[in-house]
Amino acid sequence: MSCTDRKVIRCRAAVAWEAGKPLVIEEVEVAPPQAMEVRLKVLYTALCHTDVYFWEAKGQTPVFPRIFGHEAAGIVESVGEGVTELKPGDHVLPVFTGECKECRHCKSEESNMCDLLRINTDRGVMLNDGKSRFSINGKPIYHFVGTSTFSEYTVVHVGCLAKINPAAPLDKVCILSCGVSTGLGATLNVAKPPKGSTVAIFGLGAVGLSAAEGARIAGASRIIGVDLNPKRFHQAKMFGVTEFVNPKDYDKPVQEVIAEMTDGGVDRSVECTGNINAMISAFECVHDGWGVAVLVGVPNKDDAFKSHPMNFLNERTLKGTFFGNYKPRTDLPSVVEMYLKKELELEKFITHEVTLSEINKAFDYMLNGESIRCIIRMD
Amino acid sequence: MSCTDRKVIRCRAAVAWEAGKPLVIEEVEVAPPQAMEVRLKVLYTALCHTDVYFWEAKGQTPVFPRIFGHEAAGIVESVGEGVTELKPGDHVLPVFTGECKECRHCKSEESNMCDLLRINTDRGVMLNDGKSRFSINGKPIYHFVGTSTFSEYTVVHVGCLAKINPAAPLDKVCILSCGVSTGLGATLNVAKPPKGSTVAIFGLGAVGLSAAEGARIAGASRIIGVDLNPKRFHQAKMFGVTEFVNPKDYDKPVQEVIAEMTDGGVDRSVECTGNINAMISAFECVHDGWGVAVLVGVPNKDDAFKSHPMNFLNERTLKGTFFGNYKPRTDLPSVVEMYLKKELELEKFITHEVTLSEINKAFDYMLNGESIRCIIRMD
Repeated sequence: MSCTDRKVIRCRAAVAWEAGKPLVIEEVEVAPPQAMEVRLKVLYTALCHTDVYFWEAKGQTPVFPRIFGHEAAGIVESVGEGVTELKPGDHVLPVFTGECKECRHCKSEESNMCDLLRINTDRGVMLNDGKSRFSINGKPIYHFVGTSTFSEYTVVHVGCLAKINPAAPLDKVCILSCGVSTGLGATLNVAKPPKGSTVAIFGLGAVGLSAAEGARIAGASRIIGVDLNPKRFHQAKMFGVTEFVNPKDYDKPVQEVIAEMTDGGVDRSVECTGNINAMISAFECVHDGWGVAVLVGVPNKDDAFKSHPMNFLNERTLKGTFFGNYKPRTDLPSVVEMYLKKELELEKFITHEVTLSEINKAFDYMLNGESIRCIIRMD
Repeated sequence: MSCTDRKVIRCRAAVAWEAGKPLVIEEVEVAPPQAMEVRLKVLYTALCHTDVYFWEAKGQTPVFPRIFGHEAAGIVESVGEGVTELKPGDHVLPVFTGECKECRHCKSEESNMCDLLRINTDRGVMLNDGKSRFSINGKPIYHFVGTSTFSEYTVVHVGCLAKINPAAPLDKVCILSCGVSTGLGATLNVAKPPKGSTVAIFGLGAVGLSAAEGARIAGASRIIGVDLNPKRFHQAKMFGVTEFVNPKDYDKPVQEVIAEMTDGGVDRSVECTGNINAMISAFECVHDGWGVAVLVGVPNKDDAFKSHPMNFLNERTLKGTFFGNYKPRTDLPSVVEMYLKKELELEKFITHEVTLSEINKAFDYMLNGESIRCIIRMD
């Protein structure tokens, strides 16, 4: 039991008071963890597009004031009633979606879409009592996707914490909490390219580069990157991308371009943009007979995926994935091990680093398209 | 070598002289097999919807006069140059699509869409010389999908013949040439329902009933049959269908009805109608997290499959299949063995039997919706 156990902790956090306005470093009060909750000291966090998307709050229900942040690594400070799997001092990755281990999804070998702890971007409170654990002068500050890692301390449901090897450097593995695992798992767990196969990756942002990294690890012979921004190809080579296609350079659909490059289509494709036309192209560019396309990018509300059904009947497969099909508690520790064994290279994703007080710079880097991942050091 | 080897054989065949007109039993000349071809004596054939569809020739290129027929069983009479796998006396099932064993598709573990011998409904001649082996008074009678089994003798490419166990009764296993294998394989090879799972089958014709038979064999706990014709449920029970849903009985989409019946959706679905709305329902009725929908039915040219991409992102899979993903030569012999081991029940598919001279009755039975399969005895 630590000296802070069962007491309110006062610490620094970056608070978003309003949509789209710079975050403000505030002193917040963090209540002790309740049943099935864990309070952790966040050591490193990173900025992901999803934080920016909900901070901008264009079109979603605005939930403010709020503490964003969901890619992070930390150390357990104290645990609430009923928590037996974790103890103070354990190294953990908080995850925006959880694993209760008891629902139909958790019991299924295939799904990671836990009924109890599935991502909920509208909820700003904890499940146990419907209240926030953060406050300033008694006024609640809302949570974000159950993680709120832009705070020196945060409270997370135990089902949203992966206990990892304490030998892993937290300033690197923190980025496995979201984007990198999403792309990596889309390729390794869902597309499953056989060694020597051809893979197309649509969108060369952090998730797409992670999908490419997965294809590189799987031993793909050709990795074709598709992006509207030609500057991204240079960087993408580090992640195993061997060829680049910019749809703007052609006056025919990119699926036709790729089919011509690959004698009928790639073996696998992974769509990481969320653009509906890219989704359709990603599906139609896989080879008949065995091609598998995987959707990762999140579409707009009113989008419709549309293709001729013969494209399916000619033995193509279309699948979607969520968080790379990783079950957070069960599977993330092994992704950390992949990094420790040097199979997975994380350093190349980390392009910037700032302190908590400089957190708004991380937003600028992302909005300007300069960063893949910017690490935010909490101390 | 038989006494007919390398000679023209004169025999009876049912010739379609014109689209939609009753077939006429004629004496035809059947030329000897050329390189990589086999001439076989057809003992039993059956009528399939695809024969009727191309006989009606509504919207396709009409190829007449033509000998239809593609579900059959026979015995090798003679073989052409280069044929080493088969010899006179071997029992075989001719198949409308082939397996050359040398192309990328045949070498792929996943595909059965052979580049050389993939189904071609427009071609009425043999590959070797672009000519027909059938004639009447020197005038060519065209082939149909490389099989033309409505003839006492026919010539087939060796790649379109599955050599089967001679212990198998040909009057039963002849129906494995097309429809039954298509539905059975869609479930067993593609949907792969785990034991105890729930399966929805759209369309309870011969292919749908075969898909249900596959689900029964796989040990599904619930098999939900979906059909607009309520009379089909009684028959479908024999094939393992446990529940029946008629979309006409509800004022909401059938995918919602099925989701309510099954706590969120079935584990697997198989679409056997070719109707585009049924395809969409079949996809949307599978459970998120693990559901797999398989398309079997052939759509119209101008159809568009349309669904919200979130239905994919919530970890649903949509696949299409062709001939149940069976490779004809490699895989059909094992389906025959499933029947011999009494795992697969074929008798219940055979509702009618006629002689070759009565073949037009088989068309009537099918057009009236009376038959699942009508066997045509050639002797």
